[in-house]
Amino acid sequence: MRLGIDIGGTKTAAVAIGADGELSDLVRLPTGFGAPAVLSTARQVVERMSELAGVAVGSFDSIGIGIPGAVDTTTGRVEHAVNLGLEGLDLGPRLSDELGVAVRVENDVKAAALGAHHLLGVADGVTAHSMAYLNLGTGLAAGIVLDGELLRGGHGVAGEIGHIPIDPSGVVCGCGQRGCIETFASGSAIGRMWPTSNPLPARELFDLAAAGDRRAVEVREQFLRGAASAVRLLALTTDVDDIVIGGGLAALGDPLLLGVRRILNEWALDSAFLASIGLAERVQVIPLGFPAAAVGAALVGEPSWQNS
Amino acid sequence: MRLGIDIGGTKTAAVAIGADGELSDLVRLPTGFGAPAVLSTARQVVERMSELAGVAVGSFDSIGIGIPGAVDTTTGRVEHAVNLGLEGLDLGPRLSDELGVAVRVENDVKAAALGAHHLLGVADGVTAHSMAYLNLGTGLAAGIVLDGELLRGGHGVAGEIGHIPIDPSGVVCGCGQRGCIETFASGSAIGRMWPTSNPLPARELFDLAAAGDRRAVEVREQFLRGAASAVRLLALTTDVDDIVIGGGLAALGDPLLLGVRRILNEWALDSAFLASIGLAERVQVIPLGFPAAAVGAALVGEPSWQNS
Repeated sequence: MRLGIDIGGTKTAAVAIGADGELSDLVRLPTGFGAPAVLSTARQVVERMSELAGVAVGSFDSIGIGIPGAVDTTTGRVEHAVNLGLEGLDLGPRLSDELGVAVRVENDVKAAALGAHHLLGVADGVTAHSMAYLNLGTGLAAGIVLDGELLRGGHGVAGEIGHIPIDPSGVVCGCGQRGCIETFASGSAIGRMWPTSNPLPARELFDLAAAGDRRAVEVREQFLRGAASAVRLLALTTDVDDIVIGGGLAALGDPLLLGVRRILNEWALDSAFLASIGLAERVQVIPLGFPAAAVGAALVGEPSWQNS
Repeated sequence: MRLGIDIGGTKTAAVAIGADGELSDLVRLPTGFGAPAVLSTARQVVERMSELAGVAVGSFDSIGIGIPGAVDTTTGRVEHAVNLGLEGLDLGPRLSDELGVAVRVENDVKAAALGAHHLLGVADGVTAHSMAYLNLGTGLAAGIVLDGELLRGGHGVAGEIGHIPIDPSGVVCGCGQRGCIETFASGSAIGRMWPTSNPLPARELFDLAAAGDRRAVEVREQFLRGAASAVRLLALTTDVDDIVIGGGLAALGDPLLLGVRRILNEWALDSAFLASIGLAERVQVIPLGFPAAAVGAALVGEPSWQNS
């Protein structure tokens, strides 16, 4: 059994995959802040999974972790995971030493891309898809899988399309550039464009827009055009077959999917070139509740460093 | 000996690569217009190469062709090569039947990407680079090579970054969209922004800008910002190590390379994120006169269909 753990800013989720590919129930715990607390949360979630599965911790075949930040997949070290209070942590080796099981670490968006890729394979029985996972969370980034292989890149920025500018007259992004895609289509973009005390600002925005609120419609359209721009950019660069939208904002579901498709179809009306590549049909939104990052983490495979 | 042929809008160039990797002299002929003339030009260039090499046509191990348009690499068919007057031509099978040698066909920008990749390998002895070839010709497109493998994509648009919009207030592109990268950084963009009767408009533009002509400086900067945008986009999507600029406008040489690097460095002043990924050092311009597309065509390897 392979264990996958998704360490997020607020919660840590784990799932096990059996040899038959079947997924276990999901376990969730609140994530602690800072290195000792993050390690402890990870340890607790592994123990909880071992109890649920009725097997010893040491009998898991492998443990994979998806975590935000800059991850060195060779050493299992994570850096700059600001939301978790981690400046730098040898997460893989530390956890592996404590648990006696090989632990591999991957960036959370890349792990989620592998999880979404797995789901495509379950749906159609094909094991090697070319697809992109477009994560709409606090920020915007993508994970790209080509012929079943995750594109990792050489400088830690593969799929960092959120920081590609698409409007020279846009607002200044946190990265210092102007008009980045992330300033249109992300949780932080909605926070800026739609200030509210509602705990679900994106939901409120879409509900009010659906009810005809003019300002909400305007902001929603800005957001949808940003997301559709990301889809178009991924297709015209990597030419993947499928673009699967995930991340926290994917919980918007059909209003998000249909909105992005509508924008892509509107663009295709003016461009025979765009119309010919059928972008709208290539977009999906990941099913609500599917733990893409945890599943992908379970699939990242054996660590290249040795478990001592 | 493997033969590579680059069929361009005005000229057809051929080169042979020996088993030791050595390149022969280049042969060039004007390209004919329309299917029979294109076929005849290709045949002539093969015959010329066979004379030069002092071997029979049938003794070439393989023939590869790079050609503009939509190429089906499996069947060797090319479509929509408008500048060559080709609506559709079974170029691979036709030429293979006539010459008795296996012929493989590839899109010219993708072939040039393989040629540029080969050049990187010659320079440092590493056989599998991750790099992008940014073609600045009449249009703008890229060929992406990941770990030595050409990214072909599933829908014929891998690397078609010229039609990614980067300015909603830009001009309408030939593709029907507004503000595409190609409307800033391509031969057609220069033709629109810098109308002139000079046969080398880009050279004139850069020369006058260097001499301080204000209008020329303005247009040159638009062009360079477009090219730098393409470099940034390729890096933040695929995270390749090198971006090699080629195509007709690469003949501008140092003024182009130094200009693109200057823009990237200016951007990095405002963005610690951009500064951290060292874009300027990852850009190169292909050496003047290197026949990238012909060399890449020679390398495309054995056809997957059988030579009868």
